[in-house]
Amino acid sequence: MLTRVSVADYAAELASGKPAPGGGSAAGLAGALGAALGEMVANFTVGRQQYADGEQEVRAALERLTELRAALLALTDSDAQVYPRVRAAYRLPKDTEEQKMQRSGAIQDACRAAAEVPGQIVLRCCETLEQLPVLLEKGNPNLLSDVGVAAKLALAGAHCAWLNVEINLAVLTDRQFAAQVRSEMAAKLQAAEDVTQQLWEATVKQICK
Amino acid sequence: MLTRVSVADYAAELASGKPAPGGGSAAGLAGALGAALGEMVANFTVGRQQYADGEQEVRAALERLTELRAALLALTDSDAQVYPRVRAAYRLPKDTEEQKMQRSGAIQDACRAAAEVPGQIVLRCCETLEQLPVLLEKGNPNLLSDVGVAAKLALAGAHCAWLNVEINLAVLTDRQFAAQVRSEMAAKLQAAEDVTQQLWEATVKQICK
Repeated sequence: MLTRVSVADYAAELASGKPAPGGGSAAGLAGALGAALGEMVANFTVGRQQYADGEQEVRAALERLTELRAALLALTDSDAQVYPRVRAAYRLPKDTEEQKMQRSGAIQDACRAAAEVPGQIVLRCCETLEQLPVLLEKGNPNLLSDVGVAAKLALAGAHCAWLNVEINLAVLTDRQFAAQVRSEMAAKLQAAEDVTQQLWEATVKQICK
Repeated sequence: MLTRVSVADYAAELASGKPAPGGGSAAGLAGALGAALGEMVANFTVGRQQYADGEQEVRAALERLTELRAALLALTDSDAQVYPRVRAAYRLPKDTEEQKMQRSGAIQDACRAAAEVPGQIVLRCCETLEQLPVLLEKGNPNLLSDVGVAAKLALAGAHCAWLNVEINLAVLTDRQFAAQVRSEMAAKLQAAEDVTQQLWEATVKQICK
């Protein structure tokens, strides 16, 4: 598993002339780092007398963020596995009509899977962002900057994964599926951008006052 | 070294209730991922006949991006080392006037170091962005989305590190130093935002056409 190699080796794999891991996998990791920073803020909040007021909500956010970190790390791995299938499909023989049809079918299947994995990354990054406002409001204020950083990284993960969804949707002949994925993502991304802007502005205002 | 632990363990360390690694370190890693993706694009370009036109420029970008990835990974480590010094300084005794003075001096020294490390991350992320336009122009167009992702991650790294610089600058009594760092960062960040917007728009336009 790719997330079991060292951070330095993962970056070297990303840099190398291998088709995977690439941008989709890196997007998953950026999202996982965002979720992890949210957890850090929550871990410096729960169980402390002075933040007892928000205990329940922060604890709920912590639990969800831990699940999201695990999901995003798993997707960091999965994305590196689906992309080579797209390449393999394009390299299938296309000498006869039958081969051409088989190749087309394989490309459609592989691109659909290669859209679904970054699609999941988009959604998990957006869910990560949904957990952050309560940390800004009721979390330990000494970790304010980590809320801002968590938001920026989760949004970057969402945007980067979105681009990888679009590349693969562009190939699909199932336009209804493509339209459905696009519409689901658009609403979530808009909400994610709005939350990030609010969190970032509040963080910067407080830090640069 | 923190970058020698696994990706999953690094994320778990970030999430934990330990003071470091935190947002500054994660910013360095986001930047390193951006540099790595730029290298990937270059590695799929150099030595190929059809991209011979841009060979020299892309090769130069590749070399610089490899240095930047190494520098950003080293800073991912360093940031986790400087922050605990800030905490330690704040915990020094302050019972006597002499202790108070010693503590103040230690806080100033620690915060200056804790501003300098993310300051380096800001600059290295901005330099990473400077290497990307040539990859969009002369790189392998099959990796177009990776240029866009590289830009988003490098800019997120720069913004997140900047926030960590500001936190520490706010504590410094050496206002001249703080003003100098701020002015250097502001110009670089503005340029980085402009480059990212251009790269992102060009990437999205091409992919969603």
